[in-house]
Amino acid sequence: MKKYYSYELFVKDTKKLIDRCKLFKPESIVAVARGGMTLAHCVAEGLELRDVQSIRTELYDDTIKREEITLVANCDFKDKKRVLVVDDIADSGETLQAVMNYLEKNFQDIEFKSATLFYKKSSSYEPHYWINEANEWIEFFWEKDFG
Amino acid sequence: MKKYYSYELFVKDTKKLIDRCKLFKPESIVAVARGGMTLAHCVAEGLELRDVQSIRTELYDDTIKREEITLVANCDFKDKKRVLVVDDIADSGETLQAVMNYLEKNFQDIEFKSATLFYKKSSSYEPHYWINEANEWIEFFWEKDFG
Repeated sequence: MKKYYSYELFVKDTKKLIDRCKLFKPESIVAVARGGMTLAHCVAEGLELRDVQSIRTELYDDTIKREEITLVANCDFKDKKRVLVVDDIADSGETLQAVMNYLEKNFQDIEFKSATLFYKKSSSYEPHYWINEANEWIEFFWEKDFG
Repeated sequence: MKKYYSYELFVKDTKKLIDRCKLFKPESIVAVARGGMTLAHCVAEGLELRDVQSIRTELYDDTIKREEITLVANCDFKDKKRVLVVDDIADSGETLQAVMNYLEKNFQDIEFKSATLFYKKSSSYEPHYWINEANEWIEFFWEKDFG
């Protein structure tokens, strides 16, 4: 059972998320591609942050499931101190956990916090900021409206 | 005079853009951040491409206008042959021209094509694929709905 998540709901939730993230005063945003890109863009607009970067993850090979998530990341944060990591959902939590581990290991002077629209209670990782608990399969408007 | 560009118009136009870009058979997408991120995400969904990267540009310093656009780019395309560069608008054309120059210089074995929703006739660069001519100041929904 899929639940369609519309642009209208997205606007409402993203504004709430922006309000919460303001407290952290992030100077830069990392989008987890693809799922986090639209959200990261809109959060960046709401927070008036121009510095948006992206990290790409690969969970599966074409044929075999890999043991570990592969990150394709080339971030640079110059003199930044606080960076917000944005994804659509913490589902299994593996992706976001891998991204946070990578960033915290490679940029030890920077504080990273994570933000998602959805969080599944069974996720192994809980984002610092999240809006909705996901009890069903969420079908985001960007997955549905352009097919 | 600003013209509001709604999500509904965006869906209609982005579907057209996806149809046109299909002919090019891109294997990877580069989003020009911030403006091109939501479009790149939705085009990637429509084309079923998982590989989405981003390039960031800085036109101004905090205090002085620079002579040239600064690109913050760390792309890697592995064995890709055709890459689509996505931005919201070719306005002056400077940003997209700089991005295309950079990519074509640094990845000479790859064919790059560009796609935007809007194109201004006064732009110094014309994207390979574009949908609307921009005669007014366009206010995109991501700029307006989250403030």
